Amino acid sequence: MSFLIKNIGIIPMTADNFIIEKGYLEIAGDEIKQVAAGQAPAGDYERIIDGTNLVALPGFVNAHTHAAMTLLRGYADDMPLMDWLEKKIWPLEAKLTAEDVYWGTMLAIVEMIRSGTTCFADMYFFMDRVAEAAEQTGIRALLSRGLIGVGPDADKALAESRELVQHWNKSNHSRVRFNLGPHAPYTCPPEYLRQVADLAGELGVGMHIHLAETASEVADSLRTYGLTPVAHMDSLGLFEHPVLAAHCVHLNDEDIEILARKRVGVAHNPESNMKLASGIAPVPRLLQAGVTVALGTDGASSNNDLDMRQEMHSCALLHKVNSMDPTILPAYQALQMATLNGAQALGLADDIGTLEAGKKADLILCKVDGPHFIPRYDIIANLVYSGQAADVDTVIIDGQIVMHNRVIRSFDEEEVLERAKYTAAQLMTR
Amino acid sequence: MSFLIKNIGIIPMTADNFIIEKGYLEIAGDEIKQVAAGQAPAGDYERIIDGTNLVALPGFVNAHTHAAMTLLRGYADDMPLMDWLEKKIWPLEAKLTAEDVYWGTMLAIVEMIRSGTTCFADMYFFMDRVAEAAEQTGIRALLSRGLIGVGPDADKALAESRELVQHWNKSNHSRVRFNLGPHAPYTCPPEYLRQVADLAGELGVGMHIHLAETASEVADSLRTYGLTPVAHMDSLGLFEHPVLAAHCVHLNDEDIEILARKRVGVAHNPESNMKLASGIAPVPRLLQAGVTVALGTDGASSNNDLDMRQEMHSCALLHKVNSMDPTILPAYQALQMATLNGAQALGLADDIGTLEAGKKADLILCKVDGPHFIPRYDIIANLVYSGQAADVDTVIIDGQIVMHNRVIRSFDEEEVLERAKYTAAQLMTR
Repeated sequence: MSFLIKNIGIIPMTADNFIIEKGYLEIAGDEIKQVAAGQAPAGDYERIIDGTNLVALPGFVNAHTHAAMTLLRGYADDMPLMDWLEKKIWPLEAKLTAEDVYWGTMLAIVEMIRSGTTCFADMYFFMDRVAEAAEQTGIRALLSRGLIGVGPDADKALAESRELVQHWNKSNHSRVRFNLGPHAPYTCPPEYLRQVADLAGELGVGMHIHLAETASEVADSLRTYGLTPVAHMDSLGLFEHPVLAAHCVHLNDEDIEILARKRVGVAHNPESNMKLASGIAPVPRLLQAGVTVALGTDGASSNNDLDMRQEMHSCALLHKVNSMDPTILPAYQALQMATLNGAQALGLADDIGTLEAGKKADLILCKVDGPHFIPRYDIIANLVYSGQAADVDTVIIDGQIVMHNRVIRSFDEEEVLERAKYTAAQLMTR
Repeated sequence: MSFLIKNIGIIPMTADNFIIEKGYLEIAGDEIKQVAAGQAPAGDYERIIDGTNLVALPGFVNAHTHAAMTLLRGYADDMPLMDWLEKKIWPLEAKLTAEDVYWGTMLAIVEMIRSGTTCFADMYFFMDRVAEAAEQTGIRALLSRGLIGVGPDADKALAESRELVQHWNKSNHSRVRFNLGPHAPYTCPPEYLRQVADLAGELGVGMHIHLAETASEVADSLRTYGLTPVAHMDSLGLFEHPVLAAHCVHLNDEDIEILARKRVGVAHNPESNMKLASGIAPVPRLLQAGVTVALGTDGASSNNDLDMRQEMHSCALLHKVNSMDPTILPAYQALQMATLNGAQALGLADDIGTLEAGKKADLILCKVDGPHFIPRYDIIANLVYSGQAADVDTVIIDGQIVMHNRVIRSFDEEEVLERAKYTAAQLMTR
């Protein structure tokens, strides 16, 4: 028994600008069984979806976010970075309960599914509740408990991280998995980072870290360690393990060479970096050097949405104007960053990131009959440059139909929205 | 008799960050009769719309576009500017018929209405058909026939422009109006520009021009005239009349001073400038100098959508990162650029741009109950930073309900989409 999507345009992301104008996809259990052009063969399909006016592509991988920060959306905007953090974000975060984090994450998952994200990499706290939200909703997630080495909970957080990995990573292909989340070089002293790296080696998992986000972080690192944040992490042995490094805005040539050589995955967050005025990451140079650059939204307090389609758009446009070269970062490359590169940067490329037989069935079906998709000279340009979150019609994750006809099927969206509103209102009274 | 929108959040754009949390709007004929907080008084309303979960704001003013270029959407992307123009855009434009321009404009109007634009400033050709499209659909428009002074049709185009103004500008408050459209300093010799300016004076209308879009335009102008494009236009007397200047990317301090002193309206097109790698306009400096800076999408061949919500978002984010200051261009200011500043730049601020008694009823009602609008700490930040075109529920122009519940009511959208597809397909065979 399998289920079939027929009469559909397919962008498998397996080769540059390769498109199947009309074909079919067969899904058996949690896997893609077949992707092919033409008419589907007759068969015993438990369900058939007619993909006329739809295009199938791999679901977006949001390579860096803090999902529960949806609760802080619009709470503080257009402020200088340190004021924003110290006067608004951190004091409110200190009041968050496990229940808040659960509902904030549920809200984020609604928004991500509605905009075509099928997998996200998250770093936050009360991560057992984040995992519960991911497990219940059907989304794929790579989660990390944020580790702050300078605080009183440093050892406890490390022990928690070990337990989370041991509990959730039972199979190599679990939908919800954990890695380790050393927050940043400036919040984790060298000795602590060595401990985290050792634990990563022992558990056989990677790490998710904020790296070189602001110019002042780099200046501080040079002053304290005589090394850039990237070189500093390298000297501590972090890059001997798989690392997903968020931001990487301020890099020198040697940093880029290290990231390439050590196969560090970079999560580029153009909208967050723009909104916080952190700077513009040297993405074309990173890609040129062979670094895997994925895309992330960062948290909703600095974006303020979790919409990967807009992130692709902003990414492609920002780097064109920043390099004064309109040929930089063409539409297909932006789409690749949001899909395959995301899978690679999260260490999940064996399972997801392309549509091909044997991979997990993580895909989205986008409506391509809206006015902004006419004419259809170039469906990839249309998706990246004029698409909208609302074009995402159907979301399939791990073979399960999570959204269809823009109605979420795997859980009660209305319940989530109401509880999230209530949670945010309660938070304001604390 | 009047119609009422009750129980609605209102952002009138009459004072900084002023919001009516719950109020009502009364519309009589083509005008706003009342905007107020609280419960609407009992009355003889011909129609009542319940605005629960909606927010009313002035419709967006797309201050610079070439509507019919929707037919070229996705036809040529990610190319160097001159290759793009010379090898792709111009040869295809040369094949466009009046009928093509009509259907391309109709497609653009569908897209604009669906994303909350109630008024647009257009420069193209076969403008009688563009006016026809605007007239039929119910949208407000300020149109100009593009004038190329170097071509064989220079005089004919000027005569056509005179006729269009005389035919369409019968009343000071006509919904569809014309001004003059000298294309750019580099396509219009000085003597021709003087003629255009004289005609503007004679007819009592303004002009719409492309100005200082690229660095090479400025360099050429300096070489040829010893003046920047802005100073050159000033020396020819253009700015003695109302001017809407699109782009204004490459400006020096003196240019900014001239634009401010001569009250030139600037149409900033951040996404087009980013995608074509034209550069980043000095918008914060222009605003600081008191210049009215509006927002435009430019044509769909260089954007590739006509979505003013995304344009606001890109504008706010781009200038923050470009100035490395996250307090630059806060959400309210971006919203102002897309509404009131647009009205001012088009010379229509007596009629539109704010929601207040006596102005034309040009407004949009946006759904604010989606996941990306939760929580609701700051509705303006939510609209600008996480809103989507698909949130626009209802569009009212000149007192007429043009879209309601996301269904276009004033014309047959499906007919337009089908005819636009057909038109684009035919164009490819020519």
